[in-house]
Amino acid sequence: MGKEKENKEGKYLFNIDKEQNFSEWYTEIVKRADIVDTRYKVKGMNIWKGYGFLALRLAMAKMEELMDKTGHEQVYFPSLIPESIFSKEKDFLEGFQGETFIITHAGKKKLKENLYLRPTSETGMYEIFKLWIQSKSDLPLKIYQIVNVFRYETKQTRPLLRVREIVKFKEAHTAHATKEEAEEQIKEGLKIYSQFFDFLLIPYKILKTPKWDTFAGAEYNYDFITILPDGKAAELGSVINLGQKFAKAFDIKYYDGEGYKHVYQTCYGISERCLGVAIAIHGDNKGLIFPPKIAPIQIIIIPIIFSKNKEEAKRVLKRAKELEKKLKKSYRVKVDEREKRPGEKFYYWEMKGVPIKIEIGPKEVKKDVVVISSRDESKKQEVKEKDVEKAIEEKIKEIEKRMKERAKKLMEKWVVKAESIEKAKAFAKKGRGLIGLGWCGKEECGKELEEKLD
Amino acid sequence: MGKEKENKEGKYLFNIDKEQNFSEWYTEIVKRADIVDTRYKVKGMNIWKGYGFLALRLAMAKMEELMDKTGHEQVYFPSLIPESIFSKEKDFLEGFQGETFIITHAGKKKLKENLYLRPTSETGMYEIFKLWIQSKSDLPLKIYQIVNVFRYETKQTRPLLRVREIVKFKEAHTAHATKEEAEEQIKEGLKIYSQFFDFLLIPYKILKTPKWDTFAGAEYNYDFITILPDGKAAELGSVINLGQKFAKAFDIKYYDGEGYKHVYQTCYGISERCLGVAIAIHGDNKGLIFPPKIAPIQIIIIPIIFSKNKEEAKRVLKRAKELEKKLKKSYRVKVDEREKRPGEKFYYWEMKGVPIKIEIGPKEVKKDVVVISSRDESKKQEVKEKDVEKAIEEKIKEIEKRMKERAKKLMEKWVVKAESIEKAKAFAKKGRGLIGLGWCGKEECGKELEEKLD
Repeated sequence: MGKEKENKEGKYLFNIDKEQNFSEWYTEIVKRADIVDTRYKVKGMNIWKGYGFLALRLAMAKMEELMDKTGHEQVYFPSLIPESIFSKEKDFLEGFQGETFIITHAGKKKLKENLYLRPTSETGMYEIFKLWIQSKSDLPLKIYQIVNVFRYETKQTRPLLRVREIVKFKEAHTAHATKEEAEEQIKEGLKIYSQFFDFLLIPYKILKTPKWDTFAGAEYNYDFITILPDGKAAELGSVINLGQKFAKAFDIKYYDGEGYKHVYQTCYGISERCLGVAIAIHGDNKGLIFPPKIAPIQIIIIPIIFSKNKEEAKRVLKRAKELEKKLKKSYRVKVDEREKRPGEKFYYWEMKGVPIKIEIGPKEVKKDVVVISSRDESKKQEVKEKDVEKAIEEKIKEIEKRMKERAKKLMEKWVVKAESIEKAKAFAKKGRGLIGLGWCGKEECGKELEEKLD
Repeated sequence: MGKEKENKEGKYLFNIDKEQNFSEWYTEIVKRADIVDTRYKVKGMNIWKGYGFLALRLAMAKMEELMDKTGHEQVYFPSLIPESIFSKEKDFLEGFQGETFIITHAGKKKLKENLYLRPTSETGMYEIFKLWIQSKSDLPLKIYQIVNVFRYETKQTRPLLRVREIVKFKEAHTAHATKEEAEEQIKEGLKIYSQFFDFLLIPYKILKTPKWDTFAGAEYNYDFITILPDGKAAELGSVINLGQKFAKAFDIKYYDGEGYKHVYQTCYGISERCLGVAIAIHGDNKGLIFPPKIAPIQIIIIPIIFSKNKEEAKRVLKRAKELEKKLKKSYRVKVDEREKRPGEKFYYWEMKGVPIKIEIGPKEVKKDVVVISSRDESKKQEVKEKDVEKAIEEKIKEIEKRMKERAKKLMEKWVVKAESIEKAKAFAKKGRGLIGLGWCGKEECGKELEEKLD
């Protein structure tokens, strides 16, 4: 999995204080652990390496499972959107126009109409929804796609978290006969995303965004928010009630027996940013800690071989291979056969975030045991060979429980409830975290509050 | 799966003579069977509907399996390639420049350097191979990605077969220390593709392309060719020996202990065209016939219900649902519960290409049997409920065998061996098929032959 490169000291040791230097920690670990290569010559566009991309594929496979189970159909809409269609909904156009890549030429030919590289697919899709939706029996319409989208980010880019090509954007789009049905759909969207972030062991708060800060073209949206180790909030995903704004702009109507009515729409999206967040919140100073369910390698088997005795070495390696074969039925597992010292291998796989390590040496072979440990604990446990599968199953459950709790605690540190505007102000000065604060709910109060806390 | 639309007669009957009107048959069936919607407003770009997209996902999952098993790592390289990098290999530039979409702006800003929307990823990748490959231990490098690519086709476009956005392009790229190793890799590539087309039940010939007609930037390539029902050849995939041309243009070298040497490279690609070809060659006048392994629905259960007796109807439906539940463990199966006459349902699922149909009516419920039939045969078979799984397993094997043989016969009709240039000429006049003809192997002879047969 990926080419391993030693650092200058010829060691695999990774050691950056994550709490103190989160930004450096993150930038370094995504490169060192073979998540992405950041040397591609377009700003904000990274190369996904095999190891990182497998984690992303596993996360997205879970998303597909959740979407398919709830009756969403996976489709694919073209990446390029004609300018005239992109411009149909005023708020959307205003919100996205500035950050969209534009194709003006093909070969040496100037195109008759500019094509916009999708930053998200509302416009391209809804132009077709108009054709797909005629009568009530065409509703609800529930589709999704997992595609690359492009945003010309002007802020500082950061691998996985803020990029100019999002390589796996999962966008769901639905249409309904009534406002109530759309609101039910919003609930389903919230439930799916809750399940998904639980799966990634990511803690979150669901915030309803104030109206003046919604997605371009929306009525209102819910944002899943978490806090990164540096106290900055990160948006994990949005569930958006589009009301009838796009339906009117794109003239999406159904016949209900009496007359034509505009549909109500929702959309909801997540991207590889989720994986970036999982990396950011779960890791420690030694490197990544992968949630077991998306770990590209879940179990690393390290044969402890003393080169002086070749027969013994053979026996150890044979046992390691047998164990790998057995575990392969249920897990992503690998034997590290490289000619390196065990210590180096330990550092290396710790850095790569493999949840479970199994050591087998001559002593273990003789006793028919193996030594198991978890990435997030220093404890080692001797387990009889015949009990290995059961032990691993339990270990994974324990790891998941601990990871979830640790992440939650980490976030709660940054979330405060302020009883007064003064307390909120004092906290806001730090420029980090989430503040819970009572307010009247009106736009003027909200904006006033924002000003006071700014 | 997909919204069903009745045609004008309110019937699902599809009936176009495929042999006589292949072009019309193909264009109609990909729309009617919910493979793609061709009404998107950019020429050559189609919308993949849920039903069609699932077949494509299933085909690509098989490809992933074959690639992973042979040690290729799945990666993802950015879609946009800077002009300066795109232009580095002269032949490649010449071959692709004319058909590449070009991004000149982001928002209202003119970009400092134009970005090319990848038509294929050699240049973007090989710029990075230079960084990844330093010593012999970095070789062989074997990666692949499944991505969307863009080609400004000037010929007539056709869904799946010739499009401007290829939505699933599987491109593999490898680098090796020696020419011999690269040649071994070519053999592996040929084997993988042979297995893949066998899986899709597509017959093919592997042709070595003459040097003056190779992929832009290649030494030589092998093309997998099949013949469509109208006698026209279709390229299914290419396996390409790049030699050292790109290695020299991008300066990809390794240190072998003595000095630096350029690597030898290969690449091989396939796309959704394979699915287009499978659709084209397997279907009949009644519609699609899906190879069972990629059929979005493999088994359709049709309850034969006579509305006059509600209790009986309930019993039939219950039995159908029980069977669905049982078969779901191993197959993609669906009960058609719509309020339509059985005959309409038969037409509909025949048109959609579902390989196996199961009918259950009151008579069958009483006798504890079901009636099974295959899409490609009119024969029906009564099977005891307890034997259904075994019967289906056998039926699928038989279907696959028949589909393969039919497709092969169809192709062989268009392949002739000509003993003389005169015979070849006579055949070439038809402007169709494949002609096998002996020749000296030199470029001048080849071009002369081409002229004579043109």
